[in-house]
Amino acid sequence: MTKKLGKHSFYFANPPVIISTGTVVGPFERESRFKDDFDHIFDEALAGESSFEKAERKMMLAACYQAMQKIQTPPEHIEFFLAGDLLNQMITAEFSALELGIPFFGIYGACSTAVEGLIMGSVLIDGGFCNLVMAATSSHFDSAERQYRYPTEYGVKRKPFAQRTVTGAGAAIISVSGEGPVITHATVGEVVDMGCKDPLNMGAAMAPAAASTITQHFADTGRSPTDYDLILTGDLGTVGYDLTMKWVAETGGFDLSQNYQDCGVLIYEGIPRPEQIQAGGSGCACSAVVFYSNIYKRMCRRELRRVLFVATGALLSPTSSMQGENIPCIAHAVSLEMR
Amino acid sequence: MTKKLGKHSFYFANPPVIISTGTVVGPFERESRFKDDFDHIFDEALAGESSFEKAERKMMLAACYQAMQKIQTPPEHIEFFLAGDLLNQMITAEFSALELGIPFFGIYGACSTAVEGLIMGSVLIDGGFCNLVMAATSSHFDSAERQYRYPTEYGVKRKPFAQRTVTGAGAAIISVSGEGPVITHATVGEVVDMGCKDPLNMGAAMAPAAASTITQHFADTGRSPTDYDLILTGDLGTVGYDLTMKWVAETGGFDLSQNYQDCGVLIYEGIPRPEQIQAGGSGCACSAVVFYSNIYKRMCRRELRRVLFVATGALLSPTSSMQGENIPCIAHAVSLEMR
Repeated sequence: MTKKLGKHSFYFANPPVIISTGTVVGPFERESRFKDDFDHIFDEALAGESSFEKAERKMMLAACYQAMQKIQTPPEHIEFFLAGDLLNQMITAEFSALELGIPFFGIYGACSTAVEGLIMGSVLIDGGFCNLVMAATSSHFDSAERQYRYPTEYGVKRKPFAQRTVTGAGAAIISVSGEGPVITHATVGEVVDMGCKDPLNMGAAMAPAAASTITQHFADTGRSPTDYDLILTGDLGTVGYDLTMKWVAETGGFDLSQNYQDCGVLIYEGIPRPEQIQAGGSGCACSAVVFYSNIYKRMCRRELRRVLFVATGALLSPTSSMQGENIPCIAHAVSLEMR
Repeated sequence: MTKKLGKHSFYFANPPVIISTGTVVGPFERESRFKDDFDHIFDEALAGESSFEKAERKMMLAACYQAMQKIQTPPEHIEFFLAGDLLNQMITAEFSALELGIPFFGIYGACSTAVEGLIMGSVLIDGGFCNLVMAATSSHFDSAERQYRYPTEYGVKRKPFAQRTVTGAGAAIISVSGEGPVITHATVGEVVDMGCKDPLNMGAAMAPAAASTITQHFADTGRSPTDYDLILTGDLGTVGYDLTMKWVAETGGFDLSQNYQDCGVLIYEGIPRPEQIQAGGSGCACSAVVFYSNIYKRMCRRELRRVLFVATGALLSPTSSMQGENIPCIAHAVSLEMR
């Protein structure tokens, strides 16, 4: 007998606890409704560095140090560091791991990386391999646009369904015990491809993966949407949000209309420059900075008792896109609750 | 109490078993001393596909199907797939996961990915989350050279300490029980940077990471080189091999001269065109196709009873290299034994 549930899920016998989080963002995110929830807002996209890539690294490290400071824990006490990011060869995570000096697992699931880190970190703890790990992820609008689409200096006009990569980083410290939301279940996604080829329309590409993982989570665990105070996807934006709600209803028969939200919709909702964000936020940092700031705090205050957190990743590569291939996607989910 | 040993290592209470492996290689590797040990050799580098990237994907899938066929297990019976590769955004692993339809964890440690997969797969099994997983990795000379250095069509003259990326893929199926070598310990590396900046001299860059992980393994477990029939690093080549032996002696006081070998040295040793390989083989496939073919078979025949397998990764990114940064490296190790 294992802790496996159905094909994609498992439970944690001794649910690991997120005892601390850290979030930092760039200057554009100062306009977000969550601005008061972030630990730090950098005044410029370069964060005082000579390149956007170095700025992103500074942000990942800043998020990690914020999380560690809150519980007065130095890097030497963290047993493993699990991190990934969108830049080629994951340089943000690797150079951060170099500075932190913590034994390192590199993980990659594009914007699903935040939840992949929570799952693998919880597996290490509940499996009895260690007591304290840190999971982190990041993204940066300027470094991501340059790598995946066009350098921002070109000033390319963006399509109405495009999303804006969130600049920032989030880190979570997961412990075998302590105060905070516990991770009770994980649902591991499979790679899904519904034929989307447009690297500017990520929400539509990712929605089938989100719908698949949410439906699978309910099937595997026997739960339904009403078991959650909040079902939160990572960075689908307005286009992907609507599609996910529709597909979960059509394929799974579950009604998400009461308690479903998306970090990509939430993070920039109501900001004064809608032409900059179109369909919403995206990037690894999108779900990380929303969940680890506002949602985490609301869970700690017990305003939210049980949350299903579903991070979605578009496994976009300029190489395969230019070779005419579709964009496969994946979504991973964790159930969190306050006990 | 956890299963942790020292700072970097842990043991498996019920050591998972590698019950099957699959290895495929490209045409150049037909000259390798291990040619009779590989499951399949493709006659051309394109493997009948229209791009080197698609050829690499075909190879990863072929290695996975070889491993599954040997134990007559379809993909539906494999609970999780853990894979990574060298191409941007890990398209080989992701498109392979798409075809296989197995819940997927993307992992990345450059050429250390083979062992990262064995560790995370074993953690999932020994932690009680599932019973059967598959770990895979791949690399391809032409796709890697194009992405990291120069397209092979340019005919750039290679430096004497350069290594040749092995074309091929390796897969391992890890089970909670069965016949085969068991994984008893894991040592998770930290990111190391000794100041190497030259993307053509990977062996020298990776040797400090290998030396650090090997020394740490002995410190954490209380073992010494004589506890192993073979200590095998992944793809250091002749330059890195010598440096590793020297540094393990100097920093750890351990003598590796009796039983230490390197897959990057072994795979092309004695081939008739030494100008093509210079310091040896490299790439994710290097350690995977050597370990999962010849070494795995020798373990199953009990010619080797206990092996320390240390895969080394140069976390090389053209982006950070062009920005003048060093190449950080990492090495992960697993102890395997026949019982």
